[in-house]
Amino acid sequence: MKYILQVDFPHDGIFGEEMAQAFADLAQDIAKEEGLIWKIWTENETDKEAGGVYLFDNENDAKRYLDKHTQRLESFGYSNIRAKIFKVNEALSVLTNATLEN
Amino acid sequence: MKYILQVDFPHDGIFGEEMAQAFADLAQDIAKEEGLIWKIWTENETDKEAGGVYLFDNENDAKRYLDKHTQRLESFGYSNIRAKIFKVNEALSVLTNATLEN
Repeated sequence: MKYILQVDFPHDGIFGEEMAQAFADLAQDIAKEEGLIWKIWTENETDKEAGGVYLFDNENDAKRYLDKHTQRLESFGYSNIRAKIFKVNEALSVLTNATLEN
Repeated sequence: MKYILQVDFPHDGIFGEEMAQAFADLAQDIAKEEGLIWKIWTENETDKEAGGVYLFDNENDAKRYLDKHTQRLESFGYSNIRAKIFKVNEALSVLTNATLEN
């Protein structure tokens, strides 16, 4: 079973290339998370929000990672972190060309 | 530039295989949306929510589709539809193994 974790939070800081440089080391660390298939990094400079969409291969790792990442974001000074975990409907997702592997 | 659209809403109905059967035709129609790379269908039977995460290859199509899909969901009787559009930070997403093509 595959699970989506979606996380977003107010972010009034750097975006784009600057963000990519600042968080490259963290991204390489996140890539090694148990159970993580991929993470897409999201940002909205107009609404001053950022976040991520994650695909996990099991629910426990999605929940474990959410706890860990929330603590990390709070340690960075972020608050009002919004997160939801969903099961993926794989049959429908395949029909809409989703890539559920990496 | 790639864009993520995340949509979710209260859903107290069918899930899993039943959902897959009921929405297979709609999924085949959504697969043809201009600018859509993929959609992942999401559901949470415990919290009674459902939704989708979409990857688009441009912002205009993400916004156009969100308007269209919101109207469709409302015509199905859904309300309290929550949606956000984000730009993808591609450099960071590549480091975390994201698949931004189909």
